[in-house]
Amino acid sequence: MQIDREAPVGVFDSGVGGLTVAREIMRNLPAEKIVYFGDTARVPYGNKSKETIIRYSRQIVHFLKEQRVKAIVVACNTASAFALDTIEKELDIPIVGVIEAGARVAAQETRNKRIGVIGTEGTIGSGIHREYLKQQDPEITVFGKACPLLVSLVEEGWLKDPVTDEVLRRYLAELQEQQIDTLILGCTHYPLLRSAIRRILGDEVRLVNPAYETALELRKVLEENGLLDLGSENEEFPYRFYVSDLAEKFQHFANSILPYDVKMTKKIDIEKY
Amino acid sequence: MQIDREAPVGVFDSGVGGLTVAREIMRNLPAEKIVYFGDTARVPYGNKSKETIIRYSRQIVHFLKEQRVKAIVVACNTASAFALDTIEKELDIPIVGVIEAGARVAAQETRNKRIGVIGTEGTIGSGIHREYLKQQDPEITVFGKACPLLVSLVEEGWLKDPVTDEVLRRYLAELQEQQIDTLILGCTHYPLLRSAIRRILGDEVRLVNPAYETALELRKVLEENGLLDLGSENEEFPYRFYVSDLAEKFQHFANSILPYDVKMTKKIDIEKY
Repeated sequence: MQIDREAPVGVFDSGVGGLTVAREIMRNLPAEKIVYFGDTARVPYGNKSKETIIRYSRQIVHFLKEQRVKAIVVACNTASAFALDTIEKELDIPIVGVIEAGARVAAQETRNKRIGVIGTEGTIGSGIHREYLKQQDPEITVFGKACPLLVSLVEEGWLKDPVTDEVLRRYLAELQEQQIDTLILGCTHYPLLRSAIRRILGDEVRLVNPAYETALELRKVLEENGLLDLGSENEEFPYRFYVSDLAEKFQHFANSILPYDVKMTKKIDIEKY
Repeated sequence: MQIDREAPVGVFDSGVGGLTVAREIMRNLPAEKIVYFGDTARVPYGNKSKETIIRYSRQIVHFLKEQRVKAIVVACNTASAFALDTIEKELDIPIVGVIEAGARVAAQETRNKRIGVIGTEGTIGSGIHREYLKQQDPEITVFGKACPLLVSLVEEGWLKDPVTDEVLRRYLAELQEQQIDTLILGCTHYPLLRSAIRRILGDEVRLVNPAYETALELRKVLEENGLLDLGSENEEFPYRFYVSDLAEKFQHFANSILPYDVKMTKKIDIEKY
């Protein structure tokens, strides 16, 4: 397959959460074109098995390759945890996952080597952050906490709300007891709760937003492979969005968080890939 | 297809919630055998489109027919709302849905003809309860309220909890303002929150549990079709469970709520049907 610098980057997630990663790519790599796929028919991934997530990810990669992308960003923590290793081996273009990027920065930032991670049941249960962090520095201790209510709270829009604060207080209490000094926001929805988390944890705990770190990692990987887009930003349709269900609802959410007017979201049948 | 009284009843749901319906069938129709399918790979259905839910339901019905069931119970409110009408036309055996059964009883119970319904976004957005209730009595006014956080709260096990009480108070406030005297628990997880809802609404509001009403409706339909099992209860494997993912987790939850020791849950590939 012929790949050039002008080709788009493929970004995928189980739904809308990965748009926080797409947003950071738009901000930090404005010359890059993006093909985004949100698996809205099969969301959420957080409570599904590894085997299922690998199957879903293979289908999505197949679809993105058909769109002739030059690199793939796995903007979903569960898919990064369960499928990235397998897919990387099957792929002839670079692939970047949200977990590795966040873990590397957390390992650099911690002073007391006690790092907390919050995420879905699937991500936390996989132990994948621990694995990456231990590779960076075997002396690091990792405290994971699954927070299954947070995605629903974000999607309800209860971002500044006493109920959300109370739920966060409970989820974060055991991490505070462990005296973590760094917390990885291990689910793409969580950056939207950053100020609430900041209020509870105070300024002493460094919050790592893997969406931002992933955009920086993507730039590095594209540079290393001679794939960084040097063109202008004046593409007519630099960003294209595909979903497996509910295109209209997706577009509405996308428009509320992206620095870009999303005009076209197309529904595809991902089971055919 | 040859169908007899001895054949099992097929029951399906998007996941574990439909077990509250299976439980009522076990209690009220103890001679009936059950084949249960929980679509745990594609749960939840509540935020998916009508088109997708019809496709999923057709696949499941196909699977259940292969198990030679004599009747089908749609134990999922979203699937009942979106797919029951379509599937009923394609089917040569009786089919019963949770929504119709609950609506009929609510229409009988209300005195002031003001009925509330709580459920997922999909169920409430479909307006299906309103449709059924208006058929029963055009003078009834229906107040629907989507409660997206409740399923996660139940699955967290926060059944008696100040956070759950506060979330319920918010969701129920507008129904109380409308002075409903009857409330349909329009999601199969909600019967597990019944005592919390009772505390908030008091004894004046009648709570309708469609799981129970569906078991009674099933008995009626089987009788009418000469399909009621007259046999003994001494079957070796009267209840069989199938899921599309995470069989072990499902079995654990099933054992916690069923009056029966669930020994075997089998994972199948529902996309092949």
